[in-house]
Amino acid sequence: MTDSLRADGRIADQLRTVTIERGWSAHAEGSALVSFGGTKVLCTASFTNGVPRWLTGKGKGWVTAEYAMLPRATNSRNDRESIKGKVGGRTHEISRLIGRALRAVVDTKALGENTIVIDCDVLQADGGTRTAAITGAYVALADAIEWGRSQKFIAQRSAPLVDSVSAVSVGIIDGTPMLDLAYVEDVRAETDMNVVVTGRGLFVEVQGTAEGAPFDKRELDALLELGVNGCAQLRDIQAATLA
Amino acid sequence: MTDSLRADGRIADQLRTVTIERGWSAHAEGSALVSFGGTKVLCTASFTNGVPRWLTGKGKGWVTAEYAMLPRATNSRNDRESIKGKVGGRTHEISRLIGRALRAVVDTKALGENTIVIDCDVLQADGGTRTAAITGAYVALADAIEWGRSQKFIAQRSAPLVDSVSAVSVGIIDGTPMLDLAYVEDVRAETDMNVVVTGRGLFVEVQGTAEGAPFDKRELDALLELGVNGCAQLRDIQAATLA
Amino acid sequence: MTDSLRADGRIADQLRTVTIERGWSAHAEGSALVSFGGTKVLCTASFTNGVPRWLTGKGKGWVTAEYAMLPRATNSRNDRESIKGKVGGRTHEISRLIGRALRAVVDTKALGENTIVIDCDVLQADGGTRTAAITGAYVALADAIEWGRSQKFIAQRSAPLVDSVSAVSVGIIDGTPMLDLAYVEDVRAETDMNVVVTGRGLFVEVQGTAEGAPFDKRELDALLELGVNGCAQLRDIQAATLA
Amino acid sequence: MTDSLRADGRIADQLRTVTIERGWSAHAEGSALVSFGGTKVLCTASFTNGVPRWLTGKGKGWVTAEYAMLPRATNSRNDRESIKGKVGGRTHEISRLIGRALRAVVDTKALGENTIVIDCDVLQADGGTRTAAITGAYVALADAIEWGRSQKFIAQRSAPLVDSVSAVSVGIIDGTPMLDLAYVEDVRAETDMNVVVTGRGLFVEVQGTAEGAPFDKRELDALLELGVNGCAQLRDIQAATLA
Amino acid sequence: MTDSLRADGRIADQLRTVTIERGWSAHAEGSALVSFGGTKVLCTASFTNGVPRWLTGKGKGWVTAEYAMLPRATNSRNDRESIKGKVGGRTHEISRLIGRALRAVVDTKALGENTIVIDCDVLQADGGTRTAAITGAYVALADAIEWGRSQKFIAQRSAPLVDSVSAVSVGIIDGTPMLDLAYVEDVRAETDMNVVVTGRGLFVEVQGTAEGAPFDKRELDALLELGVNGCAQLRDIQAATLA
Amino acid sequence: MTDSLRADGRIADQLRTVTIERGWSAHAEGSALVSFGGTKVLCTASFTNGVPRWLTGKGKGWVTAEYAMLPRATNSRNDRESIKGKVGGRTHEISRLIGRALRAVVDTKALGENTIVIDCDVLQADGGTRTAAITGAYVALADAIEWGRSQKFIAQRSAPLVDSVSAVSVGIIDGTPMLDLAYVEDVRAETDMNVVVTGRGLFVEVQGTAEGAPFDKRELDALLELGVNGCAQLRDIQAATLA
Repeated sequence: MTDSLRADGRIADQLRTVTIERGWSAHAEGSALVSFGGTKVLCTASFTNGVPRWLTGKGKGWVTAEYAMLPRATNSRNDRESIKGKVGGRTHEISRLIGRALRAVVDTKALGENTIVIDCDVLQADGGTRTAAITGAYVALADAIEWGRSQKFIAQRSAPLVDSVSAVSVGIIDGTPMLDLAYVEDVRAETDMNVVVTGRGLFVEVQGTAEGAPFDKRELDALLELGVNGCAQLRDIQAATLA
Repeated sequence: MTDSLRADGRIADQLRTVTIERGWSAHAEGSALVSFGGTKVLCTASFTNGVPRWLTGKGKGWVTAEYAMLPRATNSRNDRESIKGKVGGRTHEISRLIGRALRAVVDTKALGENTIVIDCDVLQADGGTRTAAITGAYVALADAIEWGRSQKFIAQRSAPLVDSVSAVSVGIIDGTPMLDLAYVEDVRAETDMNVVVTGRGLFVEVQGTAEGAPFDKRELDALLELGVNGCAQLRDIQAATLA
Repeated sequence: MTDSLRADGRIADQLRTVTIERGWSAHAEGSALVSFGGTKVLCTASFTNGVPRWLTGKGKGWVTAEYAMLPRATNSRNDRESIKGKVGGRTHEISRLIGRALRAVVDTKALGENTIVIDCDVLQADGGTRTAAITGAYVALADAIEWGRSQKFIAQRSAPLVDSVSAVSVGIIDGTPMLDLAYVEDVRAETDMNVVVTGRGLFVEVQGTAEGAPFDKRELDALLELGVNGCAQLRDIQAATLA
Repeated sequence: MTDSLRADGRIADQLRTVTIERGWSAHAEGSALVSFGGTKVLCTASFTNGVPRWLTGKGKGWVTAEYAMLPRATNSRNDRESIKGKVGGRTHEISRLIGRALRAVVDTKALGENTIVIDCDVLQADGGTRTAAITGAYVALADAIEWGRSQKFIAQRSAPLVDSVSAVSVGIIDGTPMLDLAYVEDVRAETDMNVVVTGRGLFVEVQGTAEGAPFDKRELDALLELGVNGCAQLRDIQAATLA
Repeated sequence: MTDSLRADGRIADQLRTVTIERGWSAHAEGSALVSFGGTKVLCTASFTNGVPRWLTGKGKGWVTAEYAMLPRATNSRNDRESIKGKVGGRTHEISRLIGRALRAVVDTKALGENTIVIDCDVLQADGGTRTAAITGAYVALADAIEWGRSQKFIAQRSAPLVDSVSAVSVGIIDGTPMLDLAYVEDVRAETDMNVVVTGRGLFVEVQGTAEGAPFDKRELDALLELGVNGCAQLRDIQAATLA
Repeated sequence: MTDSLRADGRIADQLRTVTIERGWSAHAEGSALVSFGGTKVLCTASFTNGVPRWLTGKGKGWVTAEYAMLPRATNSRNDRESIKGKVGGRTHEISRLIGRALRAVVDTKALGENTIVIDCDVLQADGGTRTAAITGAYVALADAIEWGRSQKFIAQRSAPLVDSVSAVSVGIIDGTPMLDLAYVEDVRAETDMNVVVTGRGLFVEVQGTAEGAPFDKRELDALLELGVNGCAQLRDIQAATLA
């Protein structure tokens, strides 16, 4: 493994430049514009007092997420899902992933009967949009929860956030495990994995896919280690942002 | 009419702070992030060599536009049109308006058999999203046309842009005609008008609506004059951006 | 400007033959089959006691409109929007325009908590379908309001209709402003405008679009004057119909 | 069975007043506005030279039909299928029935590679809309075929129409078989049947449904006889219209 | 008419091998996997205490049905209606037929305010899927009603089922009336009829269609007789299954 | 860990009874009805000579999959996606997973320009429907490829299948890792994982989700080991079925 392996000059276990612009939106109760290199995702958290009908009266809150891409976030333009009249499989899958990742660090009892909807809209895509989305969404979620507390929708003594959560992609390219794949790397990866990890270093979600050849346990372990380390760095960036 | 009339301290015939960040997108052939005060619209122009089937072989190009809002661009969250499975009337109406406005300054013969799709996505809304979109879209369009020329898709001697175009909202509030309404003003306006004006000061589109009481010719004239003057300022900002 | 300018022998400021067959429908609370020359629109007004949930308890009524075309109303057949599974932008835009035009002459407080839905279905199209629709819809609306009063859903002393409303298209063809464009004229017009005017001669809506070259203030003024005069004639036809 | 049985004074085996206004539409190649009493259906036939891709090159034509109701054709308003975004089961079912009925009297080889789309739009409904639609559609179809012959899209010696076709509803009310049910009768019928019969008196379609109690062979026979006789009268009205 | 007429060796008035596997589903309150030769339909009856909102408080129950085909139930694969985003006309038509057939033998007052939804999913198709579905659905319905009684949702003394119901297809092939058409016969039939008959031998539904030449009364009578006899055999198989 | 842990008497690392009924469908080129205990999935493989337009001329084949559930496959009835007019996120996600799993063992060059569509329809659900679907789909796929070879659509010397593939769910319940979760176990699992493994024991896909508490590397390893062992047993059952 050499420095020259990666197109943007990174070494294998190095994140791209990560920035989180907290409070980007003037309207949302929590928001963050997150960048992982050229990938930019606007995350907003909308707080509503009350829960959907099916959850009413159970003393629990609800956190959900929706992910989408602007039509020209990518290198060539994609038709809008609103115009096609249906949401595609990839969009559905990522929305569900983000929702699960965030719910894993929320104590819905402590949240009380409140709903938080996280919107992650990819303004520009360069690989790793779902992991950037999770990482930024956590910051938006944290601020929305603080807002709810300031408005007394959440009790002062309640701590709905039991941990932080971040995510990163890892993959094997030409036999080398690499962290935080940019788009040009992603399309070349033999194995592609997204790991979602809590601030304490536990797994929330592990999704590994053989894009080329199937992979063995040794490769899986190498990827997991890279991912856990990457998420630890992201956790520190989140913490600094929220400080 | 006094300075105290407007919530943000502007006088009646004053634009909000307008900024146009040219080339915001790394992928699009032309792009601009335009702000009219708190209204922020990302405009991208996607250039494709070739035209839709129904236009093939006529030696003419095609320019079209799509407008949309992020779900939390507004003060309270709106459901996504992709999830509702249909595009709303307002979205349709504004998309069509933007497309007509841009086509009014394009010589499609000079464009040749090329297609430009303009996407205007409202990241944050505070009134005047359609007029900001038109104003920013023109900048994205101009750059996409330059790109097409640089790639030789457009002949060097061709001049597809016959003029510039910008737009602004005007309205009557408490009897006073005002320029470039912010959202809090827009909801109070008795009459609301959007004017789309070319760089030379000619009308492309005039859409006036009595939200409260019907209006007379004198009021209409006052609004048109305000709008033409506002568009002249926007034209200068566009020109400076493209310089 | 000469008599010979217009395909059907009209002079520039002349309406086509306008007829309004009041009470066409046996079922609707108000109805009118309106013809502007070859354009025929069936307008029905459906009166329901009560309002949509979001308006309940505010002491106000609701008036809305839907516009559609039969598939073979036009010269070549268009696919049905029901089969395409979505309503097109043009349909949306016109439905919204008709609704706004009617609401401009309705005092919703005086209407009380009642809902009137106006359906304007184009049976045959020859230009000016939206303006014919508004003109006929007013007659259907007036009768539906009378019906509501006769059924005591509207108080005897209430006057929900504050004025009448009609609409007409105007346009510039070969440099000449003309009133009430037929289809063959509409496609040739450089500038196309629809004006919606109350019985008292005030503007409810002005929508002018440069289809060819942008237009100047002088042309705009000429078109507005033509339109206001045309609407005054339509107002008289409406009044005669309702007498 | 007495005269007093029927609300509108008819005797049991009597049709309502049937009128067919041939050539109602200025645009369609064939058209008819058919009335069965208060039921009014506008039938247009749109002729296109050529066939759908799946039929190309087989030397055969295609006839199809679409049925729909205006929202206020009925006593209370129904939401538009275009707005609901889907076509209902009843609409589908009737469209298919009309198409089958018409194809039964068309020799598609003689029609040549031409397509005729029949639109049947119910302007006002008072029972028997599908049977009125079939009866009027035949007239529109016949005229569209003549138009195709006049344009030389159909060979002069070809006879695409092998017979005429009409349809009528029959039902048993309070034990009495009755012809051509009006809406108030239809809702009271124990058994309801639609028969589609050729000019020569042969069956194209028989659809009988027990709305109340199941029926026996004797009742079925009585209904069929009524229906065949009713269709013979409709055939004569069609012939007179086309004469 | 000879034995050799039919591809599978049957004589003209012979059913295919019919089997009904009662209680196929571990979850549904009633279920049956019915086979008419190569046609296999899984019928499940889902019992819910309570009725849709529009029926609440009327003391009556509701029975409805939905029919669908797996994509590869047929010889070549059909796209899924879920992916096309709309239900086709044939599916709608058959769903409605099954629902009407079942409701004809249900006393909804005796059913009480309970809802039974019957799903008929064709796992493999070889002609006669709608008739097999009705025949199997009756068995599933009967068991669901028993389940409702066992759970005391239906009063012990109530008898919601007033009769049994079954259905079979009949058709004329090369001039010979035949019972229970397999797919290869169905496509060759000049006339095609589905009859739905109660256990007592009365008609619930008769749907005859001329696929080739129109048919006369004598042919109709022959088909009805075949159908009634076939349904009597199916009734006995249903009874044996439920014994 | 004791035998009494599992509701159905299994020990922790024991599969449910797995059966694969090869060639269930009379129509499909390959098919299998697979059962994992109470979970029953009908898998059909539809072979078409030729590829989608976007793949034409590249000398490569295409394998894709669609997953769906019958409405009453589950304990309470779910509305049909065809009637809702859209495919849900879960359905999309699983369809994509099955497609990826199968493509991982197919050499699309060796397949040639042929398309295989795998349909996995859940007839009855009791946990693990996606893993049963993958396991059964492989058998259907293998037979469809043989069919393609027998028809000479695939060259005799080509070997499109480079390995077999199967899948199983694993999860941690009350701290104990368990294999092949039934529904009652699935809802109680703290961590839930699906592993897709080739016949040679390599990973194609690993999807682990913390449903309750996040999990650590040790737990992940225990689950992976269980899953790999389970897949080895499934591989042997597949091989025996195809022998």
